[in-house]
Amino acid sequence: MAQQDTCRIIGIDPGLRRTGWGVVESMGNGLRFVASGTVRSDGSLDLASRLCQLHEGLTEILHAYRPDEAAVEATFVNKDASATLKLGQARGVALLVPGLAGLKVSEYAPNAVKKSVIGVGHGDKKQIHMMVRVLMPRAEFDTDDAADALAIAICHAHNRKSADLQMRIAAG
Amino acid sequence: MAQQDTCRIIGIDPGLRRTGWGVVESMGNGLRFVASGTVRSDGSLDLASRLCQLHEGLTEILHAYRPDEAAVEATFVNKDASATLKLGQARGVALLVPGLAGLKVSEYAPNAVKKSVIGVGHGDKKQIHMMVRVLMPRAEFDTDDAADALAIAICHAHNRKSADLQMRIAAG
Repeated sequence: MAQQDTCRIIGIDPGLRRTGWGVVESMGNGLRFVASGTVRSDGSLDLASRLCQLHEGLTEILHAYRPDEAAVEATFVNKDASATLKLGQARGVALLVPGLAGLKVSEYAPNAVKKSVIGVGHGDKKQIHMMVRVLMPRAEFDTDDAADALAIAICHAHNRKSADLQMRIAAG
Repeated sequence: MAQQDTCRIIGIDPGLRRTGWGVVESMGNGLRFVASGTVRSDGSLDLASRLCQLHEGLTEILHAYRPDEAAVEATFVNKDASATLKLGQARGVALLVPGLAGLKVSEYAPNAVKKSVIGVGHGDKKQIHMMVRVLMPRAEFDTDDAADALAIAICHAHNRKSADLQMRIAAG
């Protein structure tokens, strides 16, 4: 009896203040919503403590949902160097935690995520959230970040078998 | 009998390719070199694996030298958003590892480090490295990053008792 290839994927949308996460299950061509949520850090604490909070939150989620693979959005912030540095620090933790758990961690550019979820490489947040609900009618999300994380997980479900479609960042 | 206040400090100069570290011991007004080195990540690996290498290297150093406090330079890269994001990711791990070990992690702006080591807020790398050797004649370092990490540790030794001199980054 052939066993259907099931893969449980966690998508992560990193941010220092709020890191969204979404877990989906990919079975053949099907998608199933598992869970989503938002890990927050306390802005009144020092930076190292806030990064520890993100680490703790993401570690708990990996233990609770035991995904097989992880996908993280490769966001660039163009606002200013300070904002980009902050995002980078949160992103470092978001990549590290699944890496330490032995998961393969893929990165996707924002336009790859959009293309995978709404069919084109551009579109606003509302369109993405609507399509997340169309693709997974039972999906629930408490924040925009959690919805974005689900979109990243969906993108990985669509692309994980075609490595050439993956928009990896050359981290030189 | 009064016990002299001894504090073992690790300074960290984060970078994705090379993260410098330096451990010093501060006793009263004295400074003692303990060790320094460089943690490298393999540029041919994916980003999550490279961050895991930095995490592993820094974790080993904390276990080996058991510092009491940590100090990390609050560097800004003005080159481009991509370079700043990379630095931020490495910096996230450099702040996280001592934070997870329960250490207080202080941040110092580059000009605070220079002022503390060479007496003024500006100066080139050569001056800093020379002053590290003047302040700790037995200091050894294999890379510029390790020397910079020692300078950060020295800066924290000078400033840890006067919190108002600390150049903390308001991580909002």
